[in-house]
Amino acid sequence: MQRAPDALRPVTITTDWSSAPLASVLIEWGRTRVLCTALAEDEVPPFRKDKGGWLTAEYGMLPGSTPRRVKRPIGKQDGRQTEIQRLIGRALRAGFDLDRLGARTLWIDCDVLEADGGTRTASITGGYVAARIAVERLIAAGEIEPAALLTPIAAVSVGLVDGTSWLDLDYPLDSRADVDMNVVMDGAGRFIEVQGTGERRAMSRDELDALLSLAEGGIRQLFAHQDQAIARALAR
Amino acid sequence: MQRAPDALRPVTITTDWSSAPLASVLIEWGRTRVLCTALAEDEVPPFRKDKGGWLTAEYGMLPGSTPRRVKRPIGKQDGRQTEIQRLIGRALRAGFDLDRLGARTLWIDCDVLEADGGTRTASITGGYVAARIAVERLIAAGEIEPAALLTPIAAVSVGLVDGTSWLDLDYPLDSRADVDMNVVMDGAGRFIEVQGTGERRAMSRDELDALLSLAEGGIRQLFAHQDQAIARALAR
Amino acid sequence: MQRAPDALRPVTITTDWSSAPLASVLIEWGRTRVLCTALAEDEVPPFRKDKGGWLTAEYGMLPGSTPRRVKRPIGKQDGRQTEIQRLIGRALRAGFDLDRLGARTLWIDCDVLEADGGTRTASITGGYVAARIAVERLIAAGEIEPAALLTPIAAVSVGLVDGTSWLDLDYPLDSRADVDMNVVMDGAGRFIEVQGTGERRAMSRDELDALLSLAEGGIRQLFAHQDQAIARALAR
Amino acid sequence: MQRAPDALRPVTITTDWSSAPLASVLIEWGRTRVLCTALAEDEVPPFRKDKGGWLTAEYGMLPGSTPRRVKRPIGKQDGRQTEIQRLIGRALRAGFDLDRLGARTLWIDCDVLEADGGTRTASITGGYVAARIAVERLIAAGEIEPAALLTPIAAVSVGLVDGTSWLDLDYPLDSRADVDMNVVMDGAGRFIEVQGTGERRAMSRDELDALLSLAEGGIRQLFAHQDQAIARALAR
Amino acid sequence: MQRAPDALRPVTITTDWSSAPLASVLIEWGRTRVLCTALAEDEVPPFRKDKGGWLTAEYGMLPGSTPRRVKRPIGKQDGRQTEIQRLIGRALRAGFDLDRLGARTLWIDCDVLEADGGTRTASITGGYVAARIAVERLIAAGEIEPAALLTPIAAVSVGLVDGTSWLDLDYPLDSRADVDMNVVMDGAGRFIEVQGTGERRAMSRDELDALLSLAEGGIRQLFAHQDQAIARALAR
Amino acid sequence: MQRAPDALRPVTITTDWSSAPLASVLIEWGRTRVLCTALAEDEVPPFRKDKGGWLTAEYGMLPGSTPRRVKRPIGKQDGRQTEIQRLIGRALRAGFDLDRLGARTLWIDCDVLEADGGTRTASITGGYVAARIAVERLIAAGEIEPAALLTPIAAVSVGLVDGTSWLDLDYPLDSRADVDMNVVMDGAGRFIEVQGTGERRAMSRDELDALLSLAEGGIRQLFAHQDQAIARALAR
Repeated sequence: MQRAPDALRPVTITTDWSSAPLASVLIEWGRTRVLCTALAEDEVPPFRKDKGGWLTAEYGMLPGSTPRRVKRPIGKQDGRQTEIQRLIGRALRAGFDLDRLGARTLWIDCDVLEADGGTRTASITGGYVAARIAVERLIAAGEIEPAALLTPIAAVSVGLVDGTSWLDLDYPLDSRADVDMNVVMDGAGRFIEVQGTGERRAMSRDELDALLSLAEGGIRQLFAHQDQAIARALAR
Repeated sequence: MQRAPDALRPVTITTDWSSAPLASVLIEWGRTRVLCTALAEDEVPPFRKDKGGWLTAEYGMLPGSTPRRVKRPIGKQDGRQTEIQRLIGRALRAGFDLDRLGARTLWIDCDVLEADGGTRTASITGGYVAARIAVERLIAAGEIEPAALLTPIAAVSVGLVDGTSWLDLDYPLDSRADVDMNVVMDGAGRFIEVQGTGERRAMSRDELDALLSLAEGGIRQLFAHQDQAIARALAR
Repeated sequence: MQRAPDALRPVTITTDWSSAPLASVLIEWGRTRVLCTALAEDEVPPFRKDKGGWLTAEYGMLPGSTPRRVKRPIGKQDGRQTEIQRLIGRALRAGFDLDRLGARTLWIDCDVLEADGGTRTASITGGYVAARIAVERLIAAGEIEPAALLTPIAAVSVGLVDGTSWLDLDYPLDSRADVDMNVVMDGAGRFIEVQGTGERRAMSRDELDALLSLAEGGIRQLFAHQDQAIARALAR
Repeated sequence: MQRAPDALRPVTITTDWSSAPLASVLIEWGRTRVLCTALAEDEVPPFRKDKGGWLTAEYGMLPGSTPRRVKRPIGKQDGRQTEIQRLIGRALRAGFDLDRLGARTLWIDCDVLEADGGTRTASITGGYVAARIAVERLIAAGEIEPAALLTPIAAVSVGLVDGTSWLDLDYPLDSRADVDMNVVMDGAGRFIEVQGTGERRAMSRDELDALLSLAEGGIRQLFAHQDQAIARALAR
Repeated sequence: MQRAPDALRPVTITTDWSSAPLASVLIEWGRTRVLCTALAEDEVPPFRKDKGGWLTAEYGMLPGSTPRRVKRPIGKQDGRQTEIQRLIGRALRAGFDLDRLGARTLWIDCDVLEADGGTRTASITGGYVAARIAVERLIAAGEIEPAALLTPIAAVSVGLVDGTSWLDLDYPLDSRADVDMNVVMDGAGRFIEVQGTGERRAMSRDELDALLSLAEGGIRQLFAHQDQAIARALAR
Repeated sequence: MQRAPDALRPVTITTDWSSAPLASVLIEWGRTRVLCTALAEDEVPPFRKDKGGWLTAEYGMLPGSTPRRVKRPIGKQDGRQTEIQRLIGRALRAGFDLDRLGARTLWIDCDVLEADGGTRTASITGGYVAARIAVERLIAAGEIEPAALLTPIAAVSVGLVDGTSWLDLDYPLDSRADVDMNVVMDGAGRFIEVQGTGERRAMSRDELDALLSLAEGGIRQLFAHQDQAIARALAR
């Protein structure tokens, strides 16, 4: 694929892909595909009792989503999976005023149907669309007040590969990257989460600064994709 | 939906739905959708050592595949899931001469993206297509001999609902059924597996006979769907 | 053992084999021995809340019950065990009107002391006797109304071995069988459960019909064994 | 039951109770019944590699062995069970020269079919008979040398109940006991294991001495029971 | 280390080693170091409901506490650990009148920072100090009545090594011991728990008697160490 | 404690705190205390086979390390723990040339004895000292070549609390922080890992920049503490 280092891969967001849950979103990002569903349960965890609602995320990969089969995590917790779903949950909670969600938990499930790098940023970006549509529908139904919506949330990866700063690492780039960073931002251009790791070497302050700027540009484009998808879904 | 009791719901089989594995099949059967992927590993379980190959199946439901969220089976085995994946594996193994598969295990993963009844029969019917394409491709690559292909395999459910024999129960029918039976057949019209359960009442021998005949008719139509899908995939 | 293909192995049902629980039954069926105990707990699972009672079954094999030691299922669920105990529970529930059992759960534990084929059908046949005696005793004690008793339940296996239809497979027959079927019936000669599997080859419709007839004959004899055992226990 | 405080409950040891394993023993001790089976596997744990054989014991209680149902220990280890089976294994290993058992593991499974106190001492006493018969049969088959037999092993409980020293506590005595002690001895009258616990109060040195003497007397009688059972089994 | 067979290793008990919990004790016993902390929770297990309080102990070894790394017991229960923490709990409960502790559970955690034999007796001896200080502080705060204190508790190991009776086995002695016994006593010189095991050979009645006497002497010295540590802590 | 927002809490690093393992380090950082031990095993995970060595870290908290008891993670993996030990492992691996460690795994265990915030940065900073001393000792023993040492590694937390940028958050600061960031650096002042999270609000680019600078200053001081501790240990 001939792609400029500062260009995103093609992103398509299909809303209401499946009929069952409150909202469902298939995000296709290059060859990565994640199905994000939103579902509400009329219960909150103990620490949110009498304080409002909660939003939690789970993440999984289908066994056939990569060339090498991923084992189902039955009978044991998978460290990588745990880490990713904690990140998705934290990121998405920043988009909503949990105190105004009512005594309910919003479950956002992000399941990777096909993986080619960037599954956690696709999960956050698509998961926000699913969560947002779910909340908008509950607002329209009079069950949540509009003030529960705080800000859009999107995420992208950036990295250093052979001395070049790249936006949006696919799997081949990611596996060669010296430095790899996931950035989550809100609609006001502020940082919700920055997770940078020197996989093969450390990064200088200047390199870190350049990667952050690259991520900012990519996330602005993702907000546009999200807006269109949400508008289409709500217009129905 | 106005459907005759002896008519199948619409069935669509999309092959190579995802790019990653050896073969991938999305079977859409009414509003039930199952993604079946096939993947080979160069290992066999101990009891097949030096005897040829093996085929094993796993089954899962995405948390958002039903209106009421399905919990991920982390940290514990789910009895229903275990039972279903053992059935799928047994059924699919009847389609292939395992001794001629070479020293490899064929993994067939059936993941339910959307559930509206009949997920196990859709998994068997779609899983056979994935397994078959995978084996045909390994034959074409000279890695397996053609004699490994024995017979097509397909499955359908039948049941008694309010005194009527129904072919192909969707979720609303299934939840009202007095008797519920899953039937797996081979290409010669013989039975691989018959699992009938009197959920609310027992069935007489005559009722059992009528259900078996109904299933035979449905499975013949499924073989036609499979043939077309396999031909399209192999023509590429 | 010289036995006609349509003859049952010798069956002995000893009631009140142990003194402790509400009812205990040792069923000896050829060289298979299963201890079935019945025990009531004053609790029901959530989905039966305020609806009446529940009956649940568990199945286990002692490590020394077979020539090759069976591992204790500590720390993991065993798929075969799960499947069998779900079958036993479904079968036995058909014998009782759960709504009339009172707010209690009847636990039927079937533990295989010695295994020589047919452990699941021995568990159902012996488990029914334990459940029935338990319920009769609760009726006699005025804790359950007599209408809770619906119908006797018994089960037998049948199969195709070297082209012959056999009733009641012992382990040597079972391990050579091409087709293997477990049949559960009620006292009116109707089918509660039919589970037929083509282990080595598929079966034609005629073969399936012949096996069902053979099973019907065997189960009639088992009802006689059950009746005598129950009468003896209740006469005490 | 009118029993003198220094008298054992009636003990019956039935050998070859089941046909399957290398040796099987049903020990009935008052109303406690334990099935002990012995089985050999041609493997040893890593720490016994190239050093000879091993003997290991497992202990379980059937769910219906007590008036209050015992849960099956699936998915978690049970502390009491672990403790008991470690004790049984240690005790039985003292009876054999493991270095002379050959490169095999002897599995002694002790499963409580009915429990009325003293299940661990019945397991040791009956387990020794099973292990001994198994080893004698392997000696007779020329697979083990006779010197592998070191000494008989038996065990009994003693305790202080309302100020009286009791031999062989049944469940009602055990649940009222202030002090409770399990004693394992060898054929030369020496102590293999002494486990005394002040459940409700501590014991003085004099009380401890009296209990040890009482246990010695009981164990001498158990050796006689064991000898007769072993002789009968080997005479066949 | 030149030490007489009837002499204890040096014992140092540091109270309030860490600031966080209700009481914390670092017991250093030769080169064995155990951190014992006491913590109260306002809950009791179901079987103590409305009867007063409870005391429970847990035991762990840090992975780096021995020359050969100890695996963390994640995902499985460790039999040895379970056995030890049950012993510690039973021993410490003898020191307190649980009915007078109020509706709370006292958690005593004993974590081995460095192990050189005798970790379970150090846990009991140090754990008592932590439990005692915790209870004294709750008495001083008016939350527990003084009568909750029954008696001091301490423990020591003894054993037979090369024909000599040794008090207080360190790891090198323990690994060579023929017989090994842990003894727990109360302040009146009575036995709470006696656990003697013939690891390599059985012990005669005389040997057992001699070991018990040796343990009595050692425990008297431990009571003095405990008294001083408790007095220092409460004087603060 | 009156501390300037840009000042570290007092840090003390005691080497060889326990005698057993290859190296042991007690790092006391304010009221946080972590025991870090290093231990070598002559095995590598499969993916490092024939490629050199490996370094892995585990992290745990003692139950009594905080005012509210931390449950032992037996029988389940803890998401937070998994995340932390993956971070520690990644960070420490950057300090060594794994290809030159020989066919061994270096286990770094970080166990929190007392927690007052910053346990993960204390684990990295103290864990590096333990790993470094272990490797230096293996170099001195001629088992590893000196080139295996790449760079020192240390870590600190920074955060925004009530509008102020703070270095080194203790627990009270951490629980009030709006933004919280952990920074790991190498000896050349480059970033190994940056993990910033907007717990209560997002951070602007300027705020992020200020926090990174604050962390750089703190880590320089930590390198000095490490150097002194390592020099003292190696001088012995």
